[in-house]
Amino acid sequence: MGPNEMTQIEGTLNLNDYPEPDGIQRILLGPGPSMVHPRVLQTLSNPLVGHLDPYFLKIMERTQALLRYVFQTSNRLTLTVSGTGSAAMETAMANFVEPGTPVLICINGFFGSRLAEMARRYGGDVEIISRPWGEVFAPEEVKATLEKRPAKVVALVHAETSTGALQPLDDIIKIVHRQGGVVIVDAVTSLGGLPVNVDERGIDICYSGSQKCLGVPPGLGPITVNSGAEEILRKRKTKVSNWYLDLMLVQAYWGSEHIYHHTAPISMNFALYEGLRMVAEEGLEARYTRHLENARLLWNGLEELGLQLLVPLEFRLPSLTTVLIPEGIDEAQVRARLLQEYNIEIAGGLGELKGRIWRIGLMGYSSRKENIILLLGALQHLLYKRFPLTKST
Amino acid sequence: MGPNEMTQIEGTLNLNDYPEPDGIQRILLGPGPSMVHPRVLQTLSNPLVGHLDPYFLKIMERTQALLRYVFQTSNRLTLTVSGTGSAAMETAMANFVEPGTPVLICINGFFGSRLAEMARRYGGDVEIISRPWGEVFAPEEVKATLEKRPAKVVALVHAETSTGALQPLDDIIKIVHRQGGVVIVDAVTSLGGLPVNVDERGIDICYSGSQKCLGVPPGLGPITVNSGAEEILRKRKTKVSNWYLDLMLVQAYWGSEHIYHHTAPISMNFALYEGLRMVAEEGLEARYTRHLENARLLWNGLEELGLQLLVPLEFRLPSLTTVLIPEGIDEAQVRARLLQEYNIEIAGGLGELKGRIWRIGLMGYSSRKENIILLLGALQHLLYKRFPLTKST
Repeated sequence: MGPNEMTQIEGTLNLNDYPEPDGIQRILLGPGPSMVHPRVLQTLSNPLVGHLDPYFLKIMERTQALLRYVFQTSNRLTLTVSGTGSAAMETAMANFVEPGTPVLICINGFFGSRLAEMARRYGGDVEIISRPWGEVFAPEEVKATLEKRPAKVVALVHAETSTGALQPLDDIIKIVHRQGGVVIVDAVTSLGGLPVNVDERGIDICYSGSQKCLGVPPGLGPITVNSGAEEILRKRKTKVSNWYLDLMLVQAYWGSEHIYHHTAPISMNFALYEGLRMVAEEGLEARYTRHLENARLLWNGLEELGLQLLVPLEFRLPSLTTVLIPEGIDEAQVRARLLQEYNIEIAGGLGELKGRIWRIGLMGYSSRKENIILLLGALQHLLYKRFPLTKST
Repeated sequence: MGPNEMTQIEGTLNLNDYPEPDGIQRILLGPGPSMVHPRVLQTLSNPLVGHLDPYFLKIMERTQALLRYVFQTSNRLTLTVSGTGSAAMETAMANFVEPGTPVLICINGFFGSRLAEMARRYGGDVEIISRPWGEVFAPEEVKATLEKRPAKVVALVHAETSTGALQPLDDIIKIVHRQGGVVIVDAVTSLGGLPVNVDERGIDICYSGSQKCLGVPPGLGPITVNSGAEEILRKRKTKVSNWYLDLMLVQAYWGSEHIYHHTAPISMNFALYEGLRMVAEEGLEARYTRHLENARLLWNGLEELGLQLLVPLEFRLPSLTTVLIPEGIDEAQVRARLLQEYNIEIAGGLGELKGRIWRIGLMGYSSRKENIILLLGALQHLLYKRFPLTKST
């Protein structure tokens, strides 16, 4: 039992065991959190204000408008829940899945499985369809499944953080609507980095996280719900068992009535507002272009290093790239050395891809040319003991 | 429809509508968030690191040890959930109330009612006992109720933020244990400001929020669970319907295995660590004394202004004081003028005390003599049009 596991009841606390946090700086090229621009970090240390302060209510209102811009929606119900992207996922499941609701979940990665797990916990009558990790669903599969058993709720992941695959949405959404269901789209790793376009695509419920392409620290979960789906909430037969994420209660605070629900995470909301301002200043189109061009630079560089990518170009996510581990390489050691020697974080695989891939994120403020060149150089050295532009070392 | 409610789809976003947050500074003397020391604010803007970075895991470990210190416990299961104090409350309810669990909730204020609401949502067989708001429960009431119907879970609020009453716990806890139940204690407005002493009192499950007496921004919910209560979690017949707050999953991330559950709110965890370091530097006893002495200064000053306090001295909370609104005073106007003219936030009443009381918080970094003298002077002027130390104006 180390000193940190012992009780500190008897006044034995030794302050030397708890040094000041030293504020180390990492090059974050994993699946999130991504790096955060100093302007956003600075806003985090603004003094606190109350959660019903007129100043804060104005920040909330403007944040909602900026969220509508990044989601590209006019949905009234557009806000953040006071938890991470996983809490936003749970908000979608808790509010739209009642006991017995027929649900279809499309699973082609870790986060699809999580959707199914949550839907079951809320009592949904859950059917799943699966694709191998790294692949995407064709509209026909969804259509055939729904013809056998219609579903009130269909959930799928736009950008699978565990595989790097980008799921085409348009045809699937039309199919779900034709049979009378609503579509829940996980845009955790796409919002702010590639087009989500909620209204144009007809997405009914869409959620994300603050810490990926939006370039804000983790801790807030943006979500938007269209008027048809809002109607479903109003007609629920049972109360949402999850009080903290009950959308009607959260909306009563974000709406013009401002009815107290819980104390909003003030500092995180400051940061989100500043992060969204930076998205708006850059402009969505320019931001998408930056994410895509930088991803291409990475992909080309990786291929020049002789590495293979898991996902074919057509369905490859610009925000998260998955690289197959070359034969004979100790993948965990490469990641450890990237962190220790170059201060770079990338991630390993999750679930069935554990040990088989690296995951490299280029999201938000992390998506910069200098980070890519640095990573490629470091990888070249670690894999081939050769620095860039040199024949040998 | 104002510009902020319109969709921003067509590229019509006007950046001038979204000015830089101006970082106003308030004297926060409401029920929370309390003010945050510049040292803690500064830590918030440290660069991000990954949620599995060895550096971050060390911060988590030290945070757990410091949480054990403020809770005064040796409980292994001591951590924060990634949401506000209300999420911590929900964690207690979601994990310990299964469908059909006999639950007793003691309601003498707003947050007791919320506990009952949550317990019902999780399917608990909920019995309530009530006291008028501002009063506390006597052990005999709890005993008599449990003799008629035993309960597996008894929940009550240590420090009722809505009334300013401090609930004595020791005898009630013994009674609950004797009939075989566990006690959940809401310490949202007490932890770090007055003794909670989890182990000494035998509290089974205790939770709090970061933004009150701990002096950290809102967004994290500390919780501790003793080994007996942990055993109950392991023996649950049903899965916790709330995935995000499922304690066994959260513990698997905080524990030595560090199994990914959700992306921790990194920046907020930096701030909590620094805030807890400041609690440890001051020392719990000194901190309790400061909170109590400053509260006495406030109480005396309010009484000298001819104001009456809701709660008798014996059960009065040092961290939150409730003041009866004098006859003929527009209470909302006084609060608005305090904010506009003096930059001071205090709060009105909730629920059945709405319009009848003011709530004045002296928590964490807000609990300072200069804030109290300022508030008393401002109140004197607003109520009597007279500045301190002058005969008239």
